[in-house]
Amino acid sequence: MNHVAGAVSSLDEIRTLIGNLPGADLEAGTAAAARERVLTKPEGSLGRLEDLACWMAEWQGRHPPAISHPRTAVFAGNHGVAARGVSAYPPEVTAQMVANFVAGGAAVNQLCRLFDADLRVYELGLDRPTADFVENPAMSEQECVTAIAYGMTAVEPGIDLICLGEMGIGNTTSAAALCLALHGGTAADWTGTGTGVAGETLRRKIRIVEHAAARHRDRAGDPLGILAALGGLELAAIAGAVLAARMARVPVLLDGFACTAAAAVLHAVCPRAIDHCQVAHCSVEPGHRRLLERIDRKPLLDLAMRLGEGSGATLAIGLLQAAAACHQGMATFAEAGVSERD
Amino acid sequence: MNHVAGAVSSLDEIRTLIGNLPGADLEAGTAAAARERVLTKPEGSLGRLEDLACWMAEWQGRHPPAISHPRTAVFAGNHGVAARGVSAYPPEVTAQMVANFVAGGAAVNQLCRLFDADLRVYELGLDRPTADFVENPAMSEQECVTAIAYGMTAVEPGIDLICLGEMGIGNTTSAAALCLALHGGTAADWTGTGTGVAGETLRRKIRIVEHAAARHRDRAGDPLGILAALGGLELAAIAGAVLAARMARVPVLLDGFACTAAAAVLHAVCPRAIDHCQVAHCSVEPGHRRLLERIDRKPLLDLAMRLGEGSGATLAIGLLQAAAACHQGMATFAEAGVSERD
Repeated sequence: MNHVAGAVSSLDEIRTLIGNLPGADLEAGTAAAARERVLTKPEGSLGRLEDLACWMAEWQGRHPPAISHPRTAVFAGNHGVAARGVSAYPPEVTAQMVANFVAGGAAVNQLCRLFDADLRVYELGLDRPTADFVENPAMSEQECVTAIAYGMTAVEPGIDLICLGEMGIGNTTSAAALCLALHGGTAADWTGTGTGVAGETLRRKIRIVEHAAARHRDRAGDPLGILAALGGLELAAIAGAVLAARMARVPVLLDGFACTAAAAVLHAVCPRAIDHCQVAHCSVEPGHRRLLERIDRKPLLDLAMRLGEGSGATLAIGLLQAAAACHQGMATFAEAGVSERD
Repeated sequence: MNHVAGAVSSLDEIRTLIGNLPGADLEAGTAAAARERVLTKPEGSLGRLEDLACWMAEWQGRHPPAISHPRTAVFAGNHGVAARGVSAYPPEVTAQMVANFVAGGAAVNQLCRLFDADLRVYELGLDRPTADFVENPAMSEQECVTAIAYGMTAVEPGIDLICLGEMGIGNTTSAAALCLALHGGTAADWTGTGTGVAGETLRRKIRIVEHAAARHRDRAGDPLGILAALGGLELAAIAGAVLAARMARVPVLLDGFACTAAAAVLHAVCPRAIDHCQVAHCSVEPGHRRLLERIDRKPLLDLAMRLGEGSGATLAIGLLQAAAACHQGMATFAEAGVSERD
């Protein structure tokens, strides 16, 4: 991984990387599908758990699949646009919540403990927010590449699942602007209440998203350029982690709107680039459901969550562990002496 | 509990019991709601996890709630109607799957191990199926009451959550007939593929459901009478377990179509009788989604499962554990020094 992370020094190199990603391990996937058919249950009756077992085998490149060392990686960054008052919380909350992660007091800490996930928090220069993208690109190409490379370092040897999440006051504004630039529509389509804004603040947030996308419309058709212009450091890092996971054969659970928007940048370059990712849950942030339709993804959970910080992704670890446990531990019809279909 | 289980000797006594069930512990629920408001997250951002924490407090009668000793109770029974060929599997499979549960080879075994649930399997005379309800009531009143009382014994001291499930070749036919008798509509509305029937077998299954409900239409307006006529021993036992859990302050996770149909009998007597139950998942069996609409319940998971045996209910334990862990373990804004809303 370090080789790969060290190797990227331009967005062009990232584009080349995306064009040359390894595919699924079809042999492992076929072995998983064959086993699912002989386990003691009506065929298909475990529904998506069966699909998940095959998907894990394909993207871990092994059969049977297992989730023994899951990691949750939370990337934290600050946004210049936050100074425009798009959030219900002040920008200092990003650093305060990082301290809360370190102290063990956030939701994601409790979820990582419950599902035995290793929590790592990656700060992306919280005292140096991105530029205000209404006026200038949020990041230079070099800043964006550095953030992508930093995100890649989260995928270390030994982990067999990575849950990605973010913390960054202002980042649903960034995510909405990314989605508008990547997928069109209106700013209102993609802009939601985030941490809980309403009324005039929400209307201002919508106008800012609209102006930001318009300001950088010269990047249309260049998803990585759009990421640099309208994204955030933590969102670029998530994109890097998704790419590194693909190369290291580590399946990915994506969290909510901001996290999926980062992955959607890669999807816009090449739809298959995120085949090793599942979207863990559907956020109540309305742009998330719309984005999932555009990238043709069905979330695993739909529990009206909108916290971020990797909470939805970490919550879904239990579902993958369940899929792997049923796949590996169940008896076959022959082993159990259970009659097959009439 | 044994007192209660021993005490019921007629359906009239069960009716009286349903009319006198204890309510929620509003003090514990209020304490939970108050704590949710000061934890380090935007208010409401954990969505249904927040609601679940309050619901657990209300129905465990304590704050904070905790899931330390979950039990999965699987009730197995055989159905006279199975002789009419309504399933893709022969009736012997009920006993064979019970042996598989005991040997540890079924899906529910793997899920119980993963979520630290105590699995108990309750056989209801597998060599004595119910009568064929197309011709006669499936059970006499006494048989039904005995099964209800047996189900009550599954709620023992010390458990703080019970997941209910069933195994019984033919029981989606029974569940469909129960739903048709309780909620009207057509037999086709409530009848699905079960273990995987199609074509002429499915058409026969629909006709059998229609004839069975018509045969016992004199019981209209008497849900417990309908349960005796069209239910199964394992479904009556589930109804008993739901009632015993209510009295013992143990929240309930209901599994799929057959399990929810059993609980829906109690709901038809008194809608509030199942307020201490969550529906763990929505089955692909089409009658389940329809039934959830009729009893106004939103499932926690929707993963295209249709296995039964408590698998969906057990899978949802992780969500309740997550809700309890976040509720108890998270820091408050004051403790963490995180700024509140602007």
